[in-house]
Amino acid sequence: MVLSHPHADRGFTTAEFEQRTAAAQKIMARLKLDALLLTTEPEVRYFTGFDTIFWLSPTRPWFVVIPAKGAPIAVIPEIGGPSMSQTWLSDIRTWLAPQLEDDGISLLADTLKEVLPAGGVLGIPMGHETHVRMPAADFEDLRTRLGNVQISDGTEVIRSLRMVKSDAEIAKIARICSIASSAFEHLPNHIKAGDTERQAFAKFKIDLLQKGADDVPYLVGSSGPDGFTDVINRPSDRVIENGDLLLLDTGSLYDGYSCDFDRNFAFGHASDAAKTAYDLAFRATEAGLKAARPGITTSELWSAMATVLESGRCSAQQIGRMGHGLGMQVTEWPSHMPEDHTVIQAGMVLTLEPGFVFGDGKMMLHEENIVIREDGAELLSRRAAAELPIIS
Amino acid sequence: MVLSHPHADRGFTTAEFEQRTAAAQKIMARLKLDALLLTTEPEVRYFTGFDTIFWLSPTRPWFVVIPAKGAPIAVIPEIGGPSMSQTWLSDIRTWLAPQLEDDGISLLADTLKEVLPAGGVLGIPMGHETHVRMPAADFEDLRTRLGNVQISDGTEVIRSLRMVKSDAEIAKIARICSIASSAFEHLPNHIKAGDTERQAFAKFKIDLLQKGADDVPYLVGSSGPDGFTDVINRPSDRVIENGDLLLLDTGSLYDGYSCDFDRNFAFGHASDAAKTAYDLAFRATEAGLKAARPGITTSELWSAMATVLESGRCSAQQIGRMGHGLGMQVTEWPSHMPEDHTVIQAGMVLTLEPGFVFGDGKMMLHEENIVIREDGAELLSRRAAAELPIIS
Repeated sequence: MVLSHPHADRGFTTAEFEQRTAAAQKIMARLKLDALLLTTEPEVRYFTGFDTIFWLSPTRPWFVVIPAKGAPIAVIPEIGGPSMSQTWLSDIRTWLAPQLEDDGISLLADTLKEVLPAGGVLGIPMGHETHVRMPAADFEDLRTRLGNVQISDGTEVIRSLRMVKSDAEIAKIARICSIASSAFEHLPNHIKAGDTERQAFAKFKIDLLQKGADDVPYLVGSSGPDGFTDVINRPSDRVIENGDLLLLDTGSLYDGYSCDFDRNFAFGHASDAAKTAYDLAFRATEAGLKAARPGITTSELWSAMATVLESGRCSAQQIGRMGHGLGMQVTEWPSHMPEDHTVIQAGMVLTLEPGFVFGDGKMMLHEENIVIREDGAELLSRRAAAELPIIS
Repeated sequence: MVLSHPHADRGFTTAEFEQRTAAAQKIMARLKLDALLLTTEPEVRYFTGFDTIFWLSPTRPWFVVIPAKGAPIAVIPEIGGPSMSQTWLSDIRTWLAPQLEDDGISLLADTLKEVLPAGGVLGIPMGHETHVRMPAADFEDLRTRLGNVQISDGTEVIRSLRMVKSDAEIAKIARICSIASSAFEHLPNHIKAGDTERQAFAKFKIDLLQKGADDVPYLVGSSGPDGFTDVINRPSDRVIENGDLLLLDTGSLYDGYSCDFDRNFAFGHASDAAKTAYDLAFRATEAGLKAARPGITTSELWSAMATVLESGRCSAQQIGRMGHGLGMQVTEWPSHMPEDHTVIQAGMVLTLEPGFVFGDGKMMLHEENIVIREDGAELLSRRAAAELPIIS
């Protein structure tokens, strides 16, 4: 508990929200979008600072409109009015939700008509990794109410902005990565053979909270003799025994920003196959750390890691990608995979996540979190041990 | 820690999943739906048992198809294959996601064409409290690929089924309600004036985990001198002081089922206005407990609570509703409000949540969780104190 984690201010300055909005409007102009409609939690938070777990309730939709000029407009349920009025927004329009007949749709349509020219173009994120968070029937109703307004994909606006993090965003991710690193380093002191998976997960989660994580929304893992076949499990009542491997992978939060990395542990002893697989994943991550820098593409970064896996006669094609963006969500654009040719830029926060199948179908998965600097990758997670840690 | 909470088995029997599927197919037949497409976490889990926090990642879509006859078909990313194969489903079709060009859409379209007759009707939940969790552009692409298949709103299938809980579901909710009740009862022993909100929330969350909650995804609240104006906040660094009211409201989980109730506490002393408001909310909840029974509507239940609030010259129209369904999600259908005339049935799990504004704009919100039995409401949360608790 003595270790001090990198400092991060809570919240963002109004200047930063103004800058994000202006940057969005510049891209909107290039894409000829007259306004942008946002319906999902990270996008609303990115442009407003509105931060509530209330999104877990599926009952109410929330809308933010980015006009071509000026500040965003919130069109939200009345219950969110007090919180939204604490943000930098001044134009906040509310209705008493839920309403079965017209749950904000007429208010939203009227707002959009105000900011859209006749026959204008409304951008809505409709591409990969997005969805429209409102009832599909209401979305149809909105289109009808908007008449001759064209709807166009606005994914590129938020994708390109959110992929490159500000210093303030990086500071929050650096802090939660440090907190989670400490929790992983402490793990061998209190998680032992004889614990059930459920007990181990609970102890780890409580330790993360005690070490200063605001929340631990994402925690998956697996355990099994000499390995496991599934890496997205919730914990079971399985008792961890000597000879097991345990994987824990957490997306913990500090001020709304996430880490996303894992660690592997053996209990009592480990087979040569497991040690060799761990070493291969470690070396693949090393290759990723060396390769990651501004100017290369995510497919090139993938190749740097894949080459190492293939040198160990393991396939790099078994999980779908080997890392991704990271920030307000536990996974974000881009993906490190052969088909994704995103050019890596300074300020991107990424995971490196080589994974593969070894032996009789067991999985090995390593993960680190990095920020891209002008001269290459800077680790945000503290590097995993070079050899498979064994908890005795 | 001595208190034993009501027992609940983990998971569900295959017979229960078969029964849910058969019940869905009966409603589908009535609505003339030839198949039902599900894209959201609770619906997929309800019909398959597939339970992973991996849904937090926005990258990959997940699909389940309920045909007119027979078991559901999973159309999912390969990374979910091992977990899905542990469920009762046998027809599991996977693709190596993510894919930028065709992220499961052709596989999904082919699957739907197999189960749909020419010119058939595909149900998709499109109504209140739903959304389609896939990129809107992919949804358009799917419609195109399906050609002359009609798309029709399938909300009623899942709404009517999920609103009425099985004994196994009720047992899980009863258990988490008991765990959260214990945590609220213990709260005055370790949360004190001088704590920040953030410290208080963290202590409460850790206690919930130590008492046996699997997770605490939902925790909101507020504190302030003699009350507060916002009830969906995350915690701040505000120091709780004598004279404050504190509200905490949690949706904690046991085996994927949620509680959703709150408690109010005063520190040091409380004003007459706060005590009177607390008493009014308590009496409104009492009226709800007496009124809730099979055969009345949610609007009638709302009226029973509203009458009490109005007798105290407070408006019942300030939050949008006074309670809702509860189960796999922290809020579910139906809503207790004037426009919602859902007939309450035995087996429904509901919150009673009278809320109103008092004094100079402060909010008072009470909440209890109940299950509807043939002869009326049975409390799942242990009843809040009849008088505002004061922590000294």
